[in-house]
Amino acid sequence: MLSTMQDVPLTVSRILAHGSTVHGESQVITWTEGDPHRRTFAEVGRRAAQLAHALRDELSVADEERVGTLMWNNAEHMEAYLAIPSMGAVLHTLNLRLPAEQLVWIINHAEDRVVLVNGTLLPLLAPLLPQLPKLRHIVVVGPGDLSVLGGAQARVHDYEALIAERPESYTWPEIDEREAAALCYTSGTTGDPKGVLYSHRSLYLHSMQVNTAEAFALSSRDLTLPVVPMFHVNAWGLPHAAFMAGASLLMPDRFLQPAPLAEMIETLRPTIGAAVPTIWQGLLAELDAKQRDVACLHTVVIGGSACPPALMRGFEERHGIRVVHAWGMTETSPLGSVAHPPAGVSGDEEWTYRATQGRFPASVEARLIGPNGEHLPCDGRAAGELEVRGPWIAGAYYGGAQGEPLRPEDKFSPDGWLRTGDVGTITPNGYLTLTDRAKDVIKSGGEWISSVELENHLMAHPHVAEAAVVAVPDDKWGERPLATVVLNQGATIGYEELKAFLGERIARWQLPERWAVIPAVPKTSVGKFDKKVLRKQYAEGELDVTLLA
Amino acid sequence: MLSTMQDVPLTVSRILAHGSTVHGESQVITWTEGDPHRRTFAEVGRRAAQLAHALRDELSVADEERVGTLMWNNAEHMEAYLAIPSMGAVLHTLNLRLPAEQLVWIINHAEDRVVLVNGTLLPLLAPLLPQLPKLRHIVVVGPGDLSVLGGAQARVHDYEALIAERPESYTWPEIDEREAAALCYTSGTTGDPKGVLYSHRSLYLHSMQVNTAEAFALSSRDLTLPVVPMFHVNAWGLPHAAFMAGASLLMPDRFLQPAPLAEMIETLRPTIGAAVPTIWQGLLAELDAKQRDVACLHTVVIGGSACPPALMRGFEERHGIRVVHAWGMTETSPLGSVAHPPAGVSGDEEWTYRATQGRFPASVEARLIGPNGEHLPCDGRAAGELEVRGPWIAGAYYGGAQGEPLRPEDKFSPDGWLRTGDVGTITPNGYLTLTDRAKDVIKSGGEWISSVELENHLMAHPHVAEAAVVAVPDDKWGERPLATVVLNQGATIGYEELKAFLGERIARWQLPERWAVIPAVPKTSVGKFDKKVLRKQYAEGELDVTLLA
Repeated sequence: MLSTMQDVPLTVSRILAHGSTVHGESQVITWTEGDPHRRTFAEVGRRAAQLAHALRDELSVADEERVGTLMWNNAEHMEAYLAIPSMGAVLHTLNLRLPAEQLVWIINHAEDRVVLVNGTLLPLLAPLLPQLPKLRHIVVVGPGDLSVLGGAQARVHDYEALIAERPESYTWPEIDEREAAALCYTSGTTGDPKGVLYSHRSLYLHSMQVNTAEAFALSSRDLTLPVVPMFHVNAWGLPHAAFMAGASLLMPDRFLQPAPLAEMIETLRPTIGAAVPTIWQGLLAELDAKQRDVACLHTVVIGGSACPPALMRGFEERHGIRVVHAWGMTETSPLGSVAHPPAGVSGDEEWTYRATQGRFPASVEARLIGPNGEHLPCDGRAAGELEVRGPWIAGAYYGGAQGEPLRPEDKFSPDGWLRTGDVGTITPNGYLTLTDRAKDVIKSGGEWISSVELENHLMAHPHVAEAAVVAVPDDKWGERPLATVVLNQGATIGYEELKAFLGERIARWQLPERWAVIPAVPKTSVGKFDKKVLRKQYAEGELDVTLLA
Repeated sequence: MLSTMQDVPLTVSRILAHGSTVHGESQVITWTEGDPHRRTFAEVGRRAAQLAHALRDELSVADEERVGTLMWNNAEHMEAYLAIPSMGAVLHTLNLRLPAEQLVWIINHAEDRVVLVNGTLLPLLAPLLPQLPKLRHIVVVGPGDLSVLGGAQARVHDYEALIAERPESYTWPEIDEREAAALCYTSGTTGDPKGVLYSHRSLYLHSMQVNTAEAFALSSRDLTLPVVPMFHVNAWGLPHAAFMAGASLLMPDRFLQPAPLAEMIETLRPTIGAAVPTIWQGLLAELDAKQRDVACLHTVVIGGSACPPALMRGFEERHGIRVVHAWGMTETSPLGSVAHPPAGVSGDEEWTYRATQGRFPASVEARLIGPNGEHLPCDGRAAGELEVRGPWIAGAYYGGAQGEPLRPEDKFSPDGWLRTGDVGTITPNGYLTLTDRAKDVIKSGGEWISSVELENHLMAHPHVAEAAVVAVPDDKWGERPLATVVLNQGATIGYEELKAFLGERIARWQLPERWAVIPAVPKTSVGKFDKKVLRKQYAEGELDVTLLA
């Protein structure tokens, strides 16, 4: 029996209409080299309508067409965030930090015919143009050196000239909430990038979730500073959530260095900020070095990778800013879990909870899957691969305009859950702790051995500078751990002694038999351990491995 | 182009599963005459499963079947709130304050075959039984005098005995989110009661909204005190929202008097409470009379009727409790608007905003319709009937198991919006102020005259005790105001003088020509002005009306 409630879809155009009327006085403030640039939500709404008219009438953008943005966080990017999905097209945010060949691949796969690009980013786009045969229109936002586009096949437009004098309202179509609204590619280390195709429904529900007290509680009394880029999982959903709540936005544009961040916080008084740990690490050093009044920030959201406890404590104890740890990924919109402590805890216990990846909201169902595909209990001990399900979790990847959605077996379970590729535990009261990437755990005789746990123990030894543990094939157990260690300069220590050191800390069956001292752990371009290289070196006999009984 | 996000429905069973696992340690505390009774969310979850087994296996409750509850706010009612919708049946909350004939009509219209009833409410139910031919099972919750049921045709069960030893988990069906989940009848003053049939989707989205910072921001660190009854628009959505957020619940059961409320607040320390003004008025008097430490309450939500400013200030200035004013109705789930002030205001300006009905969230679209059906601007001046649209707003009334949904023209616009029957203004920044019920405004020559405004001005005159203004037919203008006044004892004042007094305060064309002094304004059973009676007295020539030029 169907209910008799109204059947009203959850769409980005509703967020746009609401924010630009009820909260029309809220502001999007963009940081510049001169005075900050201010635009009200009402103005953003009118300009979003003008942008939609320009895209449809002048550039012939069709329903469902992907429109690329290669932009920093600023008011014009916000206009694109609202206009493009609301008109029925698909906002395709381009990650300006990707290698050139991946950007080319992504733009071609999405078939972007129109790209909005910040003038300051033209030097990045220009060299790619010869490889982008379908690109027809380059809309340049803000000043930039147009000469680098010399010889481009695509037409070049100035954003302001393009939208000027167009109608300031638009009859937004009523869209099925499951229709595509935005597209963001993940940059996996292996294989082609994969596109996550968000729906109006997923963006809307995710925005509501961001605004709940169990997440970040944005309200019309907040000024939100999304340092996390808008090309990175929709800036963790903050722009749409802020527009929904009427929370003003402080957009840092390209000024992501510690000094300008500290200055914008001190002068414009944001109440909540969000960024990855490296950004906050730089800001903390800046704040520690120069006295700045940043007590306006009641909350700093950290995500993207695990947050060092010293960073959390540094902000809170020295600057009165509360750090909230959160977990998510492109495929999860990205929330994910948030590490608010449970009621009634304090002191060290509170810090223990806050250092976890946190708890899931009602809309994200989670389970742990063991090495043999079995469901594991949430007892805080059993470690398994995290799988999640929910209305803002990807069920497949974008297969291209003509292609079928992609459901690779290693990313989606047969019953449709997302395989996160992360391994960890969940406590009975719902706190997630991630320990390993699934590809880095050692599957030994139907049990998992955590490479990260072994590494952490080894690196706690006073003579060990670095340690990397990888899985290597083993006839009897399937896989066994290989421990590679980098010794401190001048240190001499035997493998037996290291193994005995480990033996005091972990179960006997987890102890590595294979050991190698190496001069340095191979690293990726962003400084992470590159275990692929170690596995390859082992396979090709390039490591000097000692086998202990 | 459909997105590739997972297609996961928004259902009450998800709220149940989430609250009883991730937040399994949160509590439902029920006030009693002895020690408060505590049950964890995990226990509530297990008992909800047992209840579902009992209803299905023992009482043969079918999919879509309405199951009535005639209960106070307590843990068992919470179990029914979760189990009945999750199993695919429909939770039908019965308003125990309704006149007997309306309760009978409602139970028969919903075709309740099973009713859960608190033992203390058996004396209310028993006399109705002869008129409830379809009622088969009475499930008695808690102690009560069963002898009053003597001779009942229906089978009588004890709740605890019925659910005991049944399985503590239940394979909840995956339900389409638009399916009916709960049913609540409005008690209009005219015509038959009308049933609002909530969906899983509407309850879920409404719960998320309650938990946002722009509404009540429930979190797992809150203890929520819903004094508003669970038979009254789902206790404003708080039970489901709290279970979703992991916010513990303090249930007052039948102890709604000022003294026990003050005691439960002082001893159990709730952080947020919700009730109608009369309840808070009583509590404020109690707190003013006896010193109680109630600073634990950071927020008190007031709704259901307009809140006297003195009440809001009294709580805040004398007891440090912030009062938040909210508006809604059965047809709106009920949120509705919430009167948080905008950013950056303080002092009298803040109080002005907080005394309004507040701002709507993104999911509730609002418009004002003038006397001739025209759309009015949101300029803070133009008064029109409020119409609303959104995913938790009713689009029709329940027509019964076999009937078509009811869409009376005076309740739903041709394009499907709900006509609230309330008249008011909306400011450019979205604040709603309600002034009249639509049936109480005077439609004079295509313009509206507010009866409430005229009454307030008249009652400000030192010689006037009460004043009621009603519309009466007028050949030239369609309708004109009739002013009826009750004079203070011993007062003598002419109509001309009263008209001149009004003339200094309102526009000339709004001034009443028809005047009558009456001994008292007729009142309804809950003390509201009964304007029906006045209109009838006028029509039948029973009033001594003076006509002024």
